[in-house]
Amino acid sequence: MKFVKMHGLGNDFVFLEDKNGADKDFSQLAVKLCAPHTGVGADGIIVIVPSDKADVRMRIINADGSEAEMCGNGIRCFAKYVYDHGIITKEEFAVETLAGIMKPKVTVGDDGKVSLVTIDMGTPFTERAQIPMEGPAGPVVDEPIEIDGKTYKITSLLMGVPHTMTYVNNVDDINLPELGHKFETYKAFPRKTNMNFVQVIDDHTIKVHTWERGAGATLACGTGSCACAVGSFLNGFTGRSVDVQLYLGTLHIEYDEKTGHVFMTGPAAVTFTGEWLED
Amino acid sequence: MKFVKMHGLGNDFVFLEDKNGADKDFSQLAVKLCAPHTGVGADGIIVIVPSDKADVRMRIINADGSEAEMCGNGIRCFAKYVYDHGIITKEEFAVETLAGIMKPKVTVGDDGKVSLVTIDMGTPFTERAQIPMEGPAGPVVDEPIEIDGKTYKITSLLMGVPHTMTYVNNVDDINLPELGHKFETYKAFPRKTNMNFVQVIDDHTIKVHTWERGAGATLACGTGSCACAVGSFLNGFTGRSVDVQLYLGTLHIEYDEKTGHVFMTGPAAVTFTGEWLED
Repeated sequence: MKFVKMHGLGNDFVFLEDKNGADKDFSQLAVKLCAPHTGVGADGIIVIVPSDKADVRMRIINADGSEAEMCGNGIRCFAKYVYDHGIITKEEFAVETLAGIMKPKVTVGDDGKVSLVTIDMGTPFTERAQIPMEGPAGPVVDEPIEIDGKTYKITSLLMGVPHTMTYVNNVDDINLPELGHKFETYKAFPRKTNMNFVQVIDDHTIKVHTWERGAGATLACGTGSCACAVGSFLNGFTGRSVDVQLYLGTLHIEYDEKTGHVFMTGPAAVTFTGEWLED
Repeated sequence: MKFVKMHGLGNDFVFLEDKNGADKDFSQLAVKLCAPHTGVGADGIIVIVPSDKADVRMRIINADGSEAEMCGNGIRCFAKYVYDHGIITKEEFAVETLAGIMKPKVTVGDDGKVSLVTIDMGTPFTERAQIPMEGPAGPVVDEPIEIDGKTYKITSLLMGVPHTMTYVNNVDDINLPELGHKFETYKAFPRKTNMNFVQVIDDHTIKVHTWERGAGATLACGTGSCACAVGSFLNGFTGRSVDVQLYLGTLHIEYDEKTGHVFMTGPAAVTFTGEWLED
């Protein structure tokens, strides 16, 4: 079984093509292939499947065998794969996902291959009940909360999933596993929250370390980067156009004034091709 | 750059052939290829190099870029690779390593490919000063030591590296990171010790979980399995022929009465072949 290994800023996937993969259960295959040491090792597998609703369909199955609705890093890799392999020949196309139709737009480099991919990540919701977070109506911007006797000022919003951020002088000084978990499980978030520690570099650049709800520390969180760009705009720290520095590179986020949508642009990389030999 | 990914009971390696690799510095390549997410992901790389002292030479470079002298799981994979690829056509052959000439012997299955590999792991040294461990002359067998106010009976010996074992009712109940580190750094071991928790199943079967000095919990430790088989024989729990159950499979250990050598027999598996595409 042939595969391609790709990553989007360190979030890595085993890509498979399966013309008959629309209804297949890929759980066991994902668990096997994603395992370190005995598998290929990855955060998930992505299966490229024909679609009758869009140009192509993306199925993404996590390392634990559960199927994900969507993934910002994954769909950048997906867009590069289908364009570079000639499955799609347009620079903007429709991808069926469990989260609906996504419309990635690719930027093609001098070598004819995709260098960057832009994804419309939809609309942020800033009303407290939408996040959801307990408390009075209105947005949650620069609001003090107390954790372990210390006061933190948080900004929270829904960017597909609940995201909270707090601003710090240096994200590298933050003990992410310890603090991240405390914010994630803070009592005011009935569905928990993803947690982002944000350092403002200048009026169009921030540095972000994200703790993902249920998953822990992550090299690059697409929705977190979008949420932090929007939050930094709402706090007046940046404009609507923000470079978000992550561990392994940068995502460019545009919080579009006209549509209210958030557009994420970032890289995708092929590291190797392979042929799986075990049964 | 083409490669083959293999593992010996979960200890995994990226295999490369390099006819001119005798004097090359593979540190940076090993760090890059062994990285999870952005590399292939492995415990180390193994480079197959021509030898003027033996039939072939094995260079093994750890994920941190340091070159290892030898590795029991690695050389089983190496032996399978060179035989299955026709680089070696004998079933017993000489391999140059930084720990000297090793002589693996392969067992070939019905499909013409190597199913098991036997390695002469050399002689255990049981004298206390050889381990080394502080205290009076003599072997260290069933000797009480105290850690955190609790008494453990240990057996220690040198099997290439210092190994200590203690017998428990159920290895799955042991908190390996917590206890392993305490034994590793116990004051009587001037060069520290690898630590093995051993459960006796019957007179020819033991189950072992190993904490490696400097490396931590490990899926399969070749020298640890040999040490525990010898120690179990010295304690009268088993004979000289012992199956050692590890997390992902079994190593068969023979403590040969005539030569005093320890022979380890175990599997090696190819998971996938690949072509690395990044520079």
